[in-house]
Amino acid sequence: MKNNNVGIIGAGLIGSLLGIYLSKKGMDVSIYEKRSDQRKKDKAQEGRSINMALSDRGWKALEKIGLKDKVKDSSIPMYGRRIHDEHGQTTFLSYGKENQAIYSISRSHFNQILIEEAEKEGVNLCFDHRCDHVDIYKNEMYFSLPDGRKLKKVPDVILGADGAYSSLRDAMQKQARFNYKQEYISHGYKELSIPPKDGDFAMDPNALHIWPRGTFMLIALPNPDKSFTCTLFLPFEGEKVCFEKINDEEDLESVFRTYFNDAYRLMPNLNEEFFGNPTSSLITIECYPWVAHKSLLIGDSSHAMVPFYGQGMNCGFEDCFILDGLIEKFGTTSWDLVFEKFQKIRKPDTDAICQLALDNFLEMRDSVANPKFLIRKKIEAKLHELYPEEWIPLYTMVTFTDLSYADAYAQGKLQDEVMDRVMSDPLITQNWQNLDYEDIIHQIETAKLV
Amino acid sequence: MKNNNVGIIGAGLIGSLLGIYLSKKGMDVSIYEKRSDQRKKDKAQEGRSINMALSDRGWKALEKIGLKDKVKDSSIPMYGRRIHDEHGQTTFLSYGKENQAIYSISRSHFNQILIEEAEKEGVNLCFDHRCDHVDIYKNEMYFSLPDGRKLKKVPDVILGADGAYSSLRDAMQKQARFNYKQEYISHGYKELSIPPKDGDFAMDPNALHIWPRGTFMLIALPNPDKSFTCTLFLPFEGEKVCFEKINDEEDLESVFRTYFNDAYRLMPNLNEEFFGNPTSSLITIECYPWVAHKSLLIGDSSHAMVPFYGQGMNCGFEDCFILDGLIEKFGTTSWDLVFEKFQKIRKPDTDAICQLALDNFLEMRDSVANPKFLIRKKIEAKLHELYPEEWIPLYTMVTFTDLSYADAYAQGKLQDEVMDRVMSDPLITQNWQNLDYEDIIHQIETAKLV
Repeated sequence: MKNNNVGIIGAGLIGSLLGIYLSKKGMDVSIYEKRSDQRKKDKAQEGRSINMALSDRGWKALEKIGLKDKVKDSSIPMYGRRIHDEHGQTTFLSYGKENQAIYSISRSHFNQILIEEAEKEGVNLCFDHRCDHVDIYKNEMYFSLPDGRKLKKVPDVILGADGAYSSLRDAMQKQARFNYKQEYISHGYKELSIPPKDGDFAMDPNALHIWPRGTFMLIALPNPDKSFTCTLFLPFEGEKVCFEKINDEEDLESVFRTYFNDAYRLMPNLNEEFFGNPTSSLITIECYPWVAHKSLLIGDSSHAMVPFYGQGMNCGFEDCFILDGLIEKFGTTSWDLVFEKFQKIRKPDTDAICQLALDNFLEMRDSVANPKFLIRKKIEAKLHELYPEEWIPLYTMVTFTDLSYADAYAQGKLQDEVMDRVMSDPLITQNWQNLDYEDIIHQIETAKLV
Repeated sequence: MKNNNVGIIGAGLIGSLLGIYLSKKGMDVSIYEKRSDQRKKDKAQEGRSINMALSDRGWKALEKIGLKDKVKDSSIPMYGRRIHDEHGQTTFLSYGKENQAIYSISRSHFNQILIEEAEKEGVNLCFDHRCDHVDIYKNEMYFSLPDGRKLKKVPDVILGADGAYSSLRDAMQKQARFNYKQEYISHGYKELSIPPKDGDFAMDPNALHIWPRGTFMLIALPNPDKSFTCTLFLPFEGEKVCFEKINDEEDLESVFRTYFNDAYRLMPNLNEEFFGNPTSSLITIECYPWVAHKSLLIGDSSHAMVPFYGQGMNCGFEDCFILDGLIEKFGTTSWDLVFEKFQKIRKPDTDAICQLALDNFLEMRDSVANPKFLIRKKIEAKLHELYPEEWIPLYTMVTFTDLSYADAYAQGKLQDEVMDRVMSDPLITQNWQNLDYEDIIHQIETAKLV
């Protein structure tokens, strides 16, 4: 077959899944990954990965290639947020209807499943290949190997699944008229953990735990070994609680005892982890075009987002699903057309989810601690129950449907305006169970017509 | 002296001026420039430079080092815009009060003046030094020479005056938490010219000529040799007039005869220039921080802007003036403090002028052709005449004062709101000479209090 020699940069979650997809189409796929094969190591402990939360878009992409059941076995459903206040009291807030859940899975374990599947499908996996440079005009990729050797590869097409610090994007950035933005938020994060207690989960395993504290927060996601992977999000510097001001065990203990006391009692390794693990930063990347000659950016390389909507991986998987659909429609003799359609279709959606991810940080660290916010969520859930087609909460549209992110974003804005009016009733705390739901639905239908 | 060995990347307008400033402070300054010494060539014809328009901020920076008079001799004052309609009829719109002008000067000629002055001041000018890489942690700059030699330089501080495609900024971009945006507008530009006619200027030399045509425009600035340098701004692609659709002499003639007929008759070399000169793109760059260790970005490298406010160079010169003031205040033993203060002071201002430059494109190519816009400008001029302190038109604040760009921007927004109300009178075309000016001033003062 012609035009079927594909080079993918990056064997992360998106690169591996993409390799499986394209290999199943009969293509000759090689994936080049700068890291060593993690399977040859004892344990993949990076100390920087946030646990992944798989949701419907991700599952849909896995289902198409028959991996849904296999992955499900390694994941734990989380049916809602469990919100911890300063006194250790918790409140549970469902993500959707009963049985609707997002699924916690370890990044490294999931990555290994996908890499193994890719190999089974005949993908040529090249570890320890650091991409130094891409010549997008000649379709040449240059790699360095650990022993100092240099290699050049010239596939028919290059797919850059090489993440936020993409080499392929670096090459594109030097081109005329490449729009590009990288923006860090003022917060960083650090991975911590809660080990099993008496052989079992130390907290409810079927929830995403949040300790919202206004300008900062702690979260915890369950693992199959009955531990939790925790992530602490703090401002790097500032007047109040921030990484800059936690310099010794005393500082650390004081912050945790004050703000996260119930979690603190479950974290015997806090000191070692806090001072041993890196403090990582959080970036948003937006760029356009994603295509240059026979190269395409996919996943985080073109649209890295902050992790607060749990959609980074799901969005990257949906990228693969959509690209696969376009290949089915137009064939690989028309890569130009496939790539062009892909970027045109996908760019408004990834812009929308990047923005939603930024917005959701405020909701997670602050709003969820507000009683009025909980009422708002309950009103929306009730509306969705009564009018399942007419009112779908934004979180549900993003997480439990495959409605385009851009459409979900636009509809979410309309619903927010209506809900702002509903919530402006000073007696809403008492009245919320007796609202005129039909009138609210009427408002949203009127708003759509404007 | 300690800490006085300064390496500047780039001998453009900003780099050369900065070299003069720092050399006058007794520092040991070297400037590294990738181009050859233009003075050794017959003529510096790049075919891509927009003529510069020097205004008050630029003059102020030149005056401090005694170069104002010398530069003035090479420049031509432009007292306003001369707007050409499709029929060749022109309207003159003053930039400010009588005698307030911006000054047209050729970029290459101006650059040579500054390079010669820098040499006189003892600056070590190193042409043909292409900066391949900067190690910001070690303060190392790596250069390639035309004969293939590689050089390393390690000054006390590095100043990146290397423009929109800065090598120093490339190095900074790889650092954690460097925010960066590069954004191209949909229009490109091409340099053209109007030669002298019968030994004299072919049009009024003391104006900036504009042919505003809605989505596109032509402009012309006078040169001392009695020619005009013209710049054509068109969308790269689109339905209507755009670069993509001008493919031969016939297309070109049709566009020029239809839209720029009076200019067309003055452009005997149009064909050769249009098809010989490159089509260049227009970029906005914003980033932060500007400082990394002992390195600082200055001028376009940290805040490249589109040319529509004529402030790119003036802003870069003001950068030099402000940096010089901070060195006088804190001394060069405190480079860290000087750099930190510089970026904190300057960033809001450069953000403001980058935005104003984008906004002004619409004004130049579209609004100036609107009779109501001309009335609006006249009302503002009258307000300024009657209340010289209370109402200063935005263009005047930016061009003829050294009020910070951020303050000018904020004040301009307030004034715009008031003027929008004034102009909403459906009979304003008849009534504008009989307005209650005192009431307008009262409105702006009320707005400021909010």
